[in-house]
Amino acid sequence: AASRLRLSGLCFLLQILTILLFAVFVRYSPESSLGLCSQQLNCSWRSQDSGFQHPRFRDVHLQSLLGFGLLVAFLGRYGPGSVATSILVVAFAIQWAVLIQGFLYFFLNGKIYVGAQSMVSADFCAAAILIATGAVVGRVNPVQMLLLTLLGVTLFTLNEYILLSLMGVRDSGGSLTVHTFSAYFGLMVSRILHEPHMEKRKEQQDMGHQPDFFAVVGTIFLWIFWPSFTSATTARDTAEPWAVLNTYFSLAASTLATFVLWPVLHAEGTLRMVQLQDATLASVAVMGMAGEMLVTPFGALIAGFLAGLIPPLGFRFLTPVLRSRLKIQDSCGVQNVHGLPGILGSLLGTLLAALATADAYGGRLELVFPLVAQGSRTAPDQALCQLSALPVTLLLAALGGCLTGAVLKMKGLRSPPDTRDLENTVLWEV
Amino acid sequence: AASRLRLSGLCFLLQILTILLFAVFVRYSPESSLGLCSQQLNCSWRSQDSGFQHPRFRDVHLQSLLGFGLLVAFLGRYGPGSVATSILVVAFAIQWAVLIQGFLYFFLNGKIYVGAQSMVSADFCAAAILIATGAVVGRVNPVQMLLLTLLGVTLFTLNEYILLSLMGVRDSGGSLTVHTFSAYFGLMVSRILHEPHMEKRKEQQDMGHQPDFFAVVGTIFLWIFWPSFTSATTARDTAEPWAVLNTYFSLAASTLATFVLWPVLHAEGTLRMVQLQDATLASVAVMGMAGEMLVTPFGALIAGFLAGLIPPLGFRFLTPVLRSRLKIQDSCGVQNVHGLPGILGSLLGTLLAALATADAYGGRLELVFPLVAQGSRTAPDQALCQLSALPVTLLLAALGGCLTGAVLKMKGLRSPPDTRDLENTVLWEV
Amino acid sequence: AASRLRLSGLCFLLQILTILLFAVFVRYSPESSLGLCSQQLNCSWRSQDSGFQHPRFRDVHLQSLLGFGLLVAFLGRYGPGSVATSILVVAFAIQWAVLIQGFLYFFLNGKIYVGAQSMVSADFCAAAILIATGAVVGRVNPVQMLLLTLLGVTLFTLNEYILLSLMGVRDSGGSLTVHTFSAYFGLMVSRILHEPHMEKRKEQQDMGHQPDFFAVVGTIFLWIFWPSFTSATTARDTAEPWAVLNTYFSLAASTLATFVLWPVLHAEGTLRMVQLQDATLASVAVMGMAGEMLVTPFGALIAGFLAGLIPPLGFRFLTPVLRSRLKIQDSCGVQNVHGLPGILGSLLGTLLAALATADAYGGRLELVFPLVAQGSRTAPDQALCQLSALPVTLLLAALGGCLTGAVLKMKGLRSPPDTRDLENTVLWEV
Repeated sequence: AASRLRLSGLCFLLQILTILLFAVFVRYSPESSLGLCSQQLNCSWRSQDSGFQHPRFRDVHLQSLLGFGLLVAFLGRYGPGSVATSILVVAFAIQWAVLIQGFLYFFLNGKIYVGAQSMVSADFCAAAILIATGAVVGRVNPVQMLLLTLLGVTLFTLNEYILLSLMGVRDSGGSLTVHTFSAYFGLMVSRILHEPHMEKRKEQQDMGHQPDFFAVVGTIFLWIFWPSFTSATTARDTAEPWAVLNTYFSLAASTLATFVLWPVLHAEGTLRMVQLQDATLASVAVMGMAGEMLVTPFGALIAGFLAGLIPPLGFRFLTPVLRSRLKIQDSCGVQNVHGLPGILGSLLGTLLAALATADAYGGRLELVFPLVAQGSRTAPDQALCQLSALPVTLLLAALGGCLTGAVLKMKGLRSPPDTRDLENTVLWEV
Repeated sequence: AASRLRLSGLCFLLQILTILLFAVFVRYSPESSLGLCSQQLNCSWRSQDSGFQHPRFRDVHLQSLLGFGLLVAFLGRYGPGSVATSILVVAFAIQWAVLIQGFLYFFLNGKIYVGAQSMVSADFCAAAILIATGAVVGRVNPVQMLLLTLLGVTLFTLNEYILLSLMGVRDSGGSLTVHTFSAYFGLMVSRILHEPHMEKRKEQQDMGHQPDFFAVVGTIFLWIFWPSFTSATTARDTAEPWAVLNTYFSLAASTLATFVLWPVLHAEGTLRMVQLQDATLASVAVMGMAGEMLVTPFGALIAGFLAGLIPPLGFRFLTPVLRSRLKIQDSCGVQNVHGLPGILGSLLGTLLAALATADAYGGRLELVFPLVAQGSRTAPDQALCQLSALPVTLLLAALGGCLTGAVLKMKGLRSPPDTRDLENTVLWEV
Repeated sequence: AASRLRLSGLCFLLQILTILLFAVFVRYSPESSLGLCSQQLNCSWRSQDSGFQHPRFRDVHLQSLLGFGLLVAFLGRYGPGSVATSILVVAFAIQWAVLIQGFLYFFLNGKIYVGAQSMVSADFCAAAILIATGAVVGRVNPVQMLLLTLLGVTLFTLNEYILLSLMGVRDSGGSLTVHTFSAYFGLMVSRILHEPHMEKRKEQQDMGHQPDFFAVVGTIFLWIFWPSFTSATTARDTAEPWAVLNTYFSLAASTLATFVLWPVLHAEGTLRMVQLQDATLASVAVMGMAGEMLVTPFGALIAGFLAGLIPPLGFRFLTPVLRSRLKIQDSCGVQNVHGLPGILGSLLGTLLAALATADAYGGRLELVFPLVAQGSRTAPDQALCQLSALPVTLLLAALGGCLTGAVLKMKGLRSPPDTRDLENTVLWEV
């Protein structure tokens, strides 16, 4: 009962806090009301500071579903026991992300101006936090989840700001900022929270039967909406088809990769929908950065195929090693599904940035690599930026994960050991 | 068997009736075929008569899902036993709404001209009827449902016409016209159909386990699509972000409100997804009227938070009183989820209308409050209109509910008492 | 184990094959990158060759869901056991369709130029293959499914090319090309694969309980998205409302038809969601060709009502005859749900083409019947074309089905009889 009231109190405090901060800082963006931004001087700060270009407003509704598409998708692994907590995480992450991202991207004269782009950015951020919670789900209580969200949103936004705005990295679909960062942030939190005597019991739980139904719906959902999501922050309509086509081909190839590898690796077991969903997520992570670049159709097939090979291999060989050697439990396999495919995607993006030429990209060069098109950077410089963004992201994720894990480990927050089995069911009627 | 054939015959008669009426009256709207309406004189009747402004056509497909989003959402409470009947209700409500709304809004030279806007209006209407059936589901048979639809669509359209066209009320998302009207219409039907000796048995049934799966899908669906739905009938692209942003913030805050209040009120019980879904629906009802106005981001958070408090409080304190004192059974709690949040939303809309100034709204004033912008009304006058729409709606809902309940109570329509337990399963294989 | 490795190997080979063919032939369409096609001479080849007109690019994301909407929809009949195989079929069909359709429609100077339109076409094709597999699901193994896909995609594209490009038939929603072709193609494959001693056992299996949950989600999904899908390949925004409105009315009427007929035909049984879903699919098949034409609103109601009558009648009277007399098993009733409604739709399209006049269509005539508007054909000529497309499609479907069935019957491909019961579960953990 005490833990339930503590959750209630924390939710209340956080909601009051965001309402107060919203009251002081947040205003409607003038451009979203009149669409005249491009002619107004005081709007020009945004496209320079943010790394985002003009949002394609009319598609913004569709992108709002990102966080929730992921939510559906994750249910295949998490089971329904986690869904109430996941929605709580999303609801708070969105409010907090609007504030934190607002201070960095949309801040002018002491006010944050929110518009369509704020929603898209906040949804990206909520998705990243959901990925990070995938590493620790089942082992933290809702109060810890809220604190993880509070810190995670802040760190995610900081990393994104460093990459997109300071370093000029292109990562429209979030291979690095969303997938890689949040996977390794979550894994590091999981490492810090490791408790030796808990391991055996949880392992059994992880092997339990998850309802495949959510995996079916999640996979189909991803197939339907991800191509348009990948292209959410690409520059303009005319630049869009590449991102859509690349994701589309990548999705198709990753599915076949699962059918190729699974029977070889798991001779006794059967293929479950959740494996196809993992392939789908991996193929999407790999196209996050490279999607808008000149991957070429067959390059997208190859990248998707390779990404589809990662989850089966990872679950077979990497996850047991992580657990036994490095004491890192990975509840939902976020490293195999998001982390490694995201790294592969960032390497692919680096390669493509190095090969970018004005001939091959045409008018698109200005949209995809504006700094290269303006002549302030050469293509190899841009590639170096893209490449150096990877260690920066990993470093920030690791440090942030350590910090967050340490906070979550504070004595008052942990549930007493004998109630921990019930944490999953505290908020859920089985 | 007789009741099954009666349903079959009634469906056949109603379908023949609508086909005949369609054949006589309904034609394609010329403007929808050529998009030249604004330059043609004979199209100008519509924007004056209807209270609707130019529909944003390209989003119309998305809004078509309203009725069905609600349908998914309601399944969390109704259980799968009602879904076949719900789809029947929607299928007939759409046809009937096209006719009735056509006579009021799209009638010219003896013909109804249907276009994209007709579909959106019919979907709004179907959603309202679904809400109303939420009050009586499980206690009426499909034949009664069809009659309820027939009368409900007519009354809904009448109320909407009085509010939007005659009184000049702004209610783009239907706080009053959809949520409040249909909730109290359904409750009054439920009151008239009350039978003392049925009460105890049904009460048990209501406590039964509903599958939470539909609540998960329904909640996610609402999160994804409602922001764009709320802005369906707002005037133009440039005016849209306010409605979208307000709904978005309201959704996030209402979720936290549920987590704040539920553990306090229900110390023993656990939070189920259906409670989060109720919060989602309530936060949407509260933004129906006010969404397109200058709620401000923190105002949207506060309104959403308050709306999210209503369902837990209502289910705890109001629903038992309604049942024991007023003899009103509320199968799915439509008063808590739609009625009271809708009233709160209309009060909020009144307040915002009173505060509207040309300075704060800019060019948007003409879109949100055209009569104020044209000088034919002052802002306080508009607020008075908005406020007086509430008693008008409640009165029409109560009178209409009495009339409809009396019709449904006619002797031939009721199922014999001993078969009544089976009504839910008549159309559903358990 | 051997059959699992064979599947793995075949997937690998097919994926390598498509990667190689993509590397040699497939390039991004220049127009999709710059949107300047209409001003470039070298783009003009496409609209002439393909029968498609300018794709409405911004809706393309929504249409990508076609294959998956159908996939969800089919699960109501197929059961979850088939979903992994279905996704495999879709993933390969898309890649193969991009190649085969590319050679016919988007081939220029030795290269295939893919863009948004390629994705829509490939999705149509994947949907058609899914329909065809509906006739044989449960009786073929995944290896046979892949070969069926390989041949089916090729034959589908050939038929589509003959109809749309050579004969100038209008079939924007695929009454003939998608629904009729694939239903009879699948049925003929099923006939060739018929094995007398298997019949009795399978019959029992078909009567088994299918989870109605997928039918609920599938039906709602179809209601939401089909209106916009039917209008996917119609010419322009201004021509769209007819197709949307017609499908919308057709959907509503078909639902009532099911409620009219089902109680009469099946006095003992109960109505299940899957029957409503069948009505939904049938109403959509009937509007495939005629949707963009002058059906008139009441015509759409009548057509939808008639289409909704077909599945109950077909399952009651036709399917048993097919099985006992013609030795054609139809696992999911594709003839009742797609085949016959598709034929009805093509007859309706023929009638409307014959009645088309410049007066009634206005500027739309050029969009719907460009050859008639240009004067190179009279309306009756166009109607004759539409009519003669039906036997052409049936002939191609029958011949192609024989060929495919013969290939699938090859000795090495069939599973040994004693393992055949397990085929459904090979890829699925029950």
